[in-house]
This record gives sequence, structure tokens and C-alpha cells, in this order.
Amino acid sequence: MLFRPKSLKSFQRILGQHKVLVSEEDLLSYSYDTTAERVIPQMVVLVESTEDVQAVVDFALDEGLIITPRGAGTGMSGGSVPLKRGIVISTERMAFIYQVDPEARTMLVGSGITTVAVQNEAAKHGLFYPPDPSSYKASTIGGNVAENAGGLRCVKYGTTKHYVLGLEFVNAHAEVLRTGALDEGESPFDLTPLLVGSEGTLGVITTILLRLIEAPAARGTLRLLFPSLEEAAGASAEIMAAGVVPSVAEIMDKAVLEAVTAFTGTRLPAEAQALLLIEVDGPAEAVEAGMAQVEHICRTRRALEIQSTRNPVEAEQLWTLRRSVSPSLARLARGKLNEDVSVPRSQLPDLIAAAQRISRRYGLLIPCFGHVGDGNIHVNVMFNPDDTLERKRALQAVEEIYKETVALGGSISGEHGIGYVKRDYLRLQMSQSEIDTLRRIKQAFDPDGIFNPGKIIPD
Amino acid sequence: MLFRPKSLKSFQRILGQHKVLVSEEDLLSYSYDTTAERVIPQMVVLVESTEDVQAVVDFALDEGLIITPRGAGTGMSGGSVPLKRGIVISTERMAFIYQVDPEARTMLVGSGITTVAVQNEAAKHGLFYPPDPSSYKASTIGGNVAENAGGLRCVKYGTTKHYVLGLEFVNAHAEVLRTGALDEGESPFDLTPLLVGSEGTLGVITTILLRLIEAPAARGTLRLLFPSLEEAAGASAEIMAAGVVPSVAEIMDKAVLEAVTAFTGTRLPAEAQALLLIEVDGPAEAVEAGMAQVEHICRTRRALEIQSTRNPVEAEQLWTLRRSVSPSLARLARGKLNEDVSVPRSQLPDLIAAAQRISRRYGLLIPCFGHVGDGNIHVNVMFNPDDTLERKRALQAVEEIYKETVALGGSISGEHGIGYVKRDYLRLQMSQSEIDTLRRIKQAFDPDGIFNPGKIIPD
Repeated sequence: MLFRPKSLKSFQRILGQHKVLVSEEDLLSYSYDTTAERVIPQMVVLVESTEDVQAVVDFALDEGLIITPRGAGTGMSGGSVPLKRGIVISTERMAFIYQVDPEARTMLVGSGITTVAVQNEAAKHGLFYPPDPSSYKASTIGGNVAENAGGLRCVKYGTTKHYVLGLEFVNAHAEVLRTGALDEGESPFDLTPLLVGSEGTLGVITTILLRLIEAPAARGTLRLLFPSLEEAAGASAEIMAAGVVPSVAEIMDKAVLEAVTAFTGTRLPAEAQALLLIEVDGPAEAVEAGMAQVEHICRTRRALEIQSTRNPVEAEQLWTLRRSVSPSLARLARGKLNEDVSVPRSQLPDLIAAAQRISRRYGLLIPCFGHVGDGNIHVNVMFNPDDTLERKRALQAVEEIYKETVALGGSISGEHGIGYVKRDYLRLQMSQSEIDTLRRIKQAFDPDGIFNPGKIIPD
Repeated sequence: MLFRPKSLKSFQRILGQHKVLVSEEDLLSYSYDTTAERVIPQMVVLVESTEDVQAVVDFALDEGLIITPRGAGTGMSGGSVPLKRGIVISTERMAFIYQVDPEARTMLVGSGITTVAVQNEAAKHGLFYPPDPSSYKASTIGGNVAENAGGLRCVKYGTTKHYVLGLEFVNAHAEVLRTGALDEGESPFDLTPLLVGSEGTLGVITTILLRLIEAPAARGTLRLLFPSLEEAAGASAEIMAAGVVPSVAEIMDKAVLEAVTAFTGTRLPAEAQALLLIEVDGPAEAVEAGMAQVEHICRTRRALEIQSTRNPVEAEQLWTLRRSVSPSLARLARGKLNEDVSVPRSQLPDLIAAAQRISRRYGLLIPCFGHVGDGNIHVNVMFNPDDTLERKRALQAVEEIYKETVALGGSISGEHGIGYVKRDYLRLQMSQSEIDTLRRIKQAFDPDGIFNPGKIIPD
């Protein structure tokens, strides 16, 4: 018996039975995200309000259970995997848009609303919510905030944290707290930036006040092929140095190009070693000028092929290869360690070269792609999960990639969070006193460790 | 004997004797800020480096002493008053400008540099550091950051927190921590916003990376007199609603006008009940357009007198009355409780009306002035400090002002911090669980309570 039958009954009665899942088949769907680990929770609660979240925390405290908050389960570092079982609080039913204020350019939402729904609602008012993680059609804003999700447009527009004005969360004492612009009595210290990126370890986020910006008037898209990775990265650096701030600047290396052309049946010039996908947005004249500059720079950098358009439908064509990256890589091997690292822009060719060396040394495919504009690269170590030795080699390769990243002045987490996946590697980039500080803050918020144990902070 | 003579000697030897003050006359200068309380510390250390600060924290831990960090001692809420004696760490000798990066628009400084020195250094590079607390010529950046200082330009440019990209501080274990853009290995949660506004209760800030912005090309100044406070506040609200964002929007009520005209010998029309001082900055054409709009709106709001200039020397003339407020009020009475509160802009006339009612009820002068643009008003309760009963009445009047402020949806701290002055009133605007959260964060950073006890968090 997992719960005392009486307390479970009364909990179900208080909350409404339809919100409480306890059957094995229901629980299975809440046991994983995109990472390898699967753990079936003891209970899932489909909360519909802040009060529901308070009731779950109360119940968990009474029963001595832990809580893992979950948005859509699209995370890349295991934030929502209930490692120690207990209760999963799913915010999927808190898909609320409470208010849009076009004057103040804000939107008040429930944490379960999807990223795409926020983007669409903003667009209705001529406004723009820029963060766009790849999973934006499924991911929730609450999950984006908890992981400080990035996306293709980070380079120009920043990550989720730049769009959170305030939030409401339920703490480990089942109390409701409001921060930032939602805190009427302005706290002397603003807790908002602590909660953003805290991956459900400090509390359960229920409501978020988002900052919106004016929608850009025009957008241009370019797809460029290069004879070498150095030329592609160099062109990208030169574009930024020339004062063009592209809204998207994506790079793919040769291994990724091979995967996506095979998957989509696209034919590219045989000499193509790297691809750049660039978008420029803003006032129409600025977009024209920016695109002309990008074309000019890429020509001097020996681009093999330049395709460009201002037409949104044609733009989708140019995006095809980029959008096919994930399914294409999935075909290469069943096991993939998607390591999301970031380095100073100038170090990017060195990092990819290091990945290629590591690839040869370990005999593993390591395709690289990502956001060249801000040096955030996804290094994918492919392996056969049924081959224990290969799995071990893959993990060693990842550790080497992390070490190279830190040696190049980078960070082992670009935009996917730490979760359990990178937890043990945090020591590579943080000192003992920094880690101790994180642990003390965690204890301050959650003295009994009921929220998402096993994430972020190394033991 | 305050210190074990051996440990004091070895401390002085390690640090250099010239940095350690222990004589009564030296200590006296570090016993106060602009608030009423004076407490003479046991020791003052004039730190010159981060290592010096670490040595002081180590010494304090050994000796069981508490530490109060201090910039220039110009604070308005007692943040730097060493309530429990112990050691004052003065950062005045850390007046360093380490680096200006005009490309990145950043400046790396020691926490003891004055605000004006930062403004001047930025100006040399065509850049602008906007925060300008009244004490900017004396106040230090470290103090501004610790108090999240505001100033006249808040309404357009925000407070100090909007200009801190990262910082270095020494924690209660004598460890050095770096946050935000100074933290190379990017912590999952950004601690910067916790330290900004923490008033020396979480650590000693040693180095700060400031964000600079482009200097505005032009600036226009207007001084406007009105027949009523309502018309002045209404004009100000209308100006903002029209889309003009003035860089300065200051209001003075009748009681302040009487004090400054008496002090400066200026003659104003007898019907003048309120004054507005407005500045508009930006590109030259935008300044022209903005000034024209301000003049138009003020005319329809029955302004008695409108003076305007684009000439910086003439602008100083228009600033005379505003700059004379503090010395003028000092003449009215020796005791002044300067209560810095903020309310939503629309509630400003109601707040000043409430102050006038409270003034009549308690038989005390309560002049009001401040930043009408963001609803941040300085309500000054004047009293005779030698008259015990009057002092008591003044404190009661302040408490009533706080209650009115909270009832109008405002905050009891506009830009001066909490310190010891407003500590007991924090409960008026924060719930028990919010205060508990602050206390737990304080304990996480400073388990033994060595940093600045008696500030911010109510017992």
C-alpha cells in the first residue's frame, strides 16, 4: 500500500478524483522526458489551480512524499523525471491566458500554457514573445521558465529569463508567494531570477507575468553552404562584428549535413562541409540592408551557394534541413547524448574540431549543430544503447567534451538546464563555495528536500 | 580590552596597520549615516582589495565579531550604521575603475568608486550611467548597489539594479563568489539580483560590472508652476500618457515651495501651489517634440508659469529650487523623518492629501516632494528632536503615512532601502511567508548572522 487509504480518499475528495492519477498505465506517461532515465511516479496530480498545488504540497508533507513538477515533459536534462518517485505535479491543465495588456506589453498566464499558444496570442495583438525552444509547440511556459529555455532566437532576443517580469509559486510550506512585478509589496530582494532556471527544486511555479515586445515588421531568411566549417563560423563572426544582429544564426557541421540530406533526400554540392541558416528581422529597410551585408560577407568567405528570401512560405523551404535535424539524427543510432554546451563565439571552431577529434578517438559519430550566434552548440554523441561498452565510451566522450568546453572558457549548460544529466559535471565549472551557496539556498527554500531531489546540485 | 592583543597585532601586521582604525576619534566618523542613530564601531578597516575583505571576515569569525559594510555613509535608512558595533568595513579605498569596454558598453569597478566618477568616466567614452541618487557626488557604487539606489532619472532609466550585470562579493565564510556576467561558469540560478538591494546583509560586495548605455544626444529642461497640486500631478500623468517619457519628472508641494523660496530668496507667483521640473532627453528632434508636448499639456492644465531651455547652463538655473530642497528643509526643524514611499502614479494626489491631513492632525510640518513620474515621493515629517512628545508624535505620523501608502497600493520603500529605519514596518507590506523566505535566504548566506544584524528583516 503506497498511501494510507483514508488519506488518499480524503485527498481525492478534496481535489476531485479526476485530477488524481494512480493507475500504472496513467503513471507511465509521466515517467520520462527526452533523456534516458525513466522512473514511474507513485501518483500524478493534474492541478488546475494554485489552490490545487497547495493541496498537493500539504498532502506530500503529511505523507512524507517528494514532488516533481512537470510541464510537457519535453526537457533535455531530466528536470521532470521523478527520480525518487513520489508525486508528479503536472501543470498541463493550467493552460490559462489570464490577461494581455497591449499597452504595458505584458501577458499573465498559467504555467501550463504552451509556448506556441503564448506566441500566437501575442501575435494577435501585434506583439511578439521571442523565446522559441525547438519543442515550442508542446513545451509549457512553466517548463521554459523552470529551465530558462533558450531557442533559435536567443542570439538576438535572449532566453526565457529576459521575458519574466514576475511569478507566483507554491513553496515547500504550501504557501503562495509572488515575486517581481506580481509582488505588490516589493520585496527588498527580487526572488524572480532565483526561480527562473531552478528546475522545480525551489517551488512549483503556477502563474507567470511575461514581457512581450513589438513584433518585427519584416523578416528575411538566408541559407548558405560553405566549403569548410571554419569559413562558416568565420562568416558568422564577421556578420556579428559588422553590426548585423541576426535573429537566427544556426550552423550545421558535415556529419549533421550528411544525416539531414539522407533523411530528406536533398542533394547539396559535394564540397559542402557546413551550412549556415540566418534570419534578420526588424524594420523593412534594416532587413534589406542586413541581408545585403550577410550576402556580401558570405561571398567573400567563399560560400558555395546562397539562397535568400523575404517570403515566409519560401523561408519554410530554407528551414527544412534545420527542422529535420532531430529526426535525422534519431536515424543514425538509437542512443544519443545531446550535449548542449556553450563557448565564446570565437572558440566555436575549436570546440567543433575537438568534438571531431573525440569522435575519431572513441569511434563514435558526434554530429554538431546549434546557435552559432551565441556560441551555444549541441554536440550529439551517438551510440548503440544495447552495447554496454559503447555506452560507456559515449559517456567518457561526453566527459571529454565537457572538459574541452570548460578549457575553452565555456559552460556545460547552454539552454537545456542541468537536471540529473549534468549534475555531476557542475563541479567542472563551479567552485565548492559556489555549489555550497546553491545548496544553502535550496535548503532555505526547501528544508526537507521535498521538491525534485537529485537535480542540479551535486551530492 | 576589546580584542585579544595578540590577535589584533597579528591582524594589523597581515593587513598593514594603516588600514586598521581603532582610536575613538577615527571610529566616530564611521558611526552614522543620514539617519538618527549613531553607534560607534569597535574597529574600522579601510579595505583596499578583495583579499583584505577576506582577511577581515576571517578575523571577525575568529573573534566572534559582526561586520557592517559601508560605502560613503550617505544612506537614508541606516544600512551602514553599525547597530551592534563590531567591525565596519569601509570600501572607500576600493575606488577603482578597472576597465571600460566601449564596445560591450560595460565598466568594471571597485565597490568604493563614487557614483559621479562612474558617470564622468562613462561620459569620456560617449556613454551614460543613468542612476543618480541625490548623494551621487559622495555615494559609492557599492552603496548604491547594496541599497538599489534610485534617483531623479529612475522614471525613464530605472534604478541601480538595471545596470548591474554581475558582481563579486565575499561571503560569511570568507570565500570569494562571482555572479552574473562575472561568473564564468554561469550558475544555474543568478545570484546578482539577491545581492542588489541586500544592504550588506548577505556579503561584502567588492567588484561590480556595470552596464552603460549610449549618451542621449540632446536634453531639454522645463520648470512649471501650477495653481494646485492636483493640476501639477494631473499634468505629469497626462505627459506620461501622451507617450513622452521624461528623464526627470519632479514635483514639490506648497510646503516645500515655501521652504525653498525662503532659503534661496526666490520670488514666485503667490498662487503657485506646486512646481514640476521636467527633463526630456534623446535624439534632438525627439527632445523638441517632447518639450512642445509638455508645454502644450501644461498650458491646458492652467500652468501659471512655464520656463524652458535646451541650454545646459540655463538648465542649472531651473534646477536651483530642486537642488535646494534638502538644505531648505533642514532649516525648518532640526528633526526630520524623511519617509521615502511610492504609490501608483494615479494615487499620488491622494497620498499628498493624506500627508496634509496627517500634518494638520499632528500639528507637524510635512513637506512632500519627489519623483512624480514613478510615484516615488519623499514625505518629510519635521519635528523638534529635543521635545520628547513631539518626537513621539512624529513617529506616529510616519506610521500613519506608511498605512496610507499601503492602503493606496504602494510600497513603504521607494529607493532608500529598508535598513533599521523601516524594518519594523516591513510587515505592513509583506506576508509572514514572504518575510520567512527572506530570513531563510539570509540564514543560507550568513548562518551565524555576522553581516549587518538588525537590518531589513524584522525579528
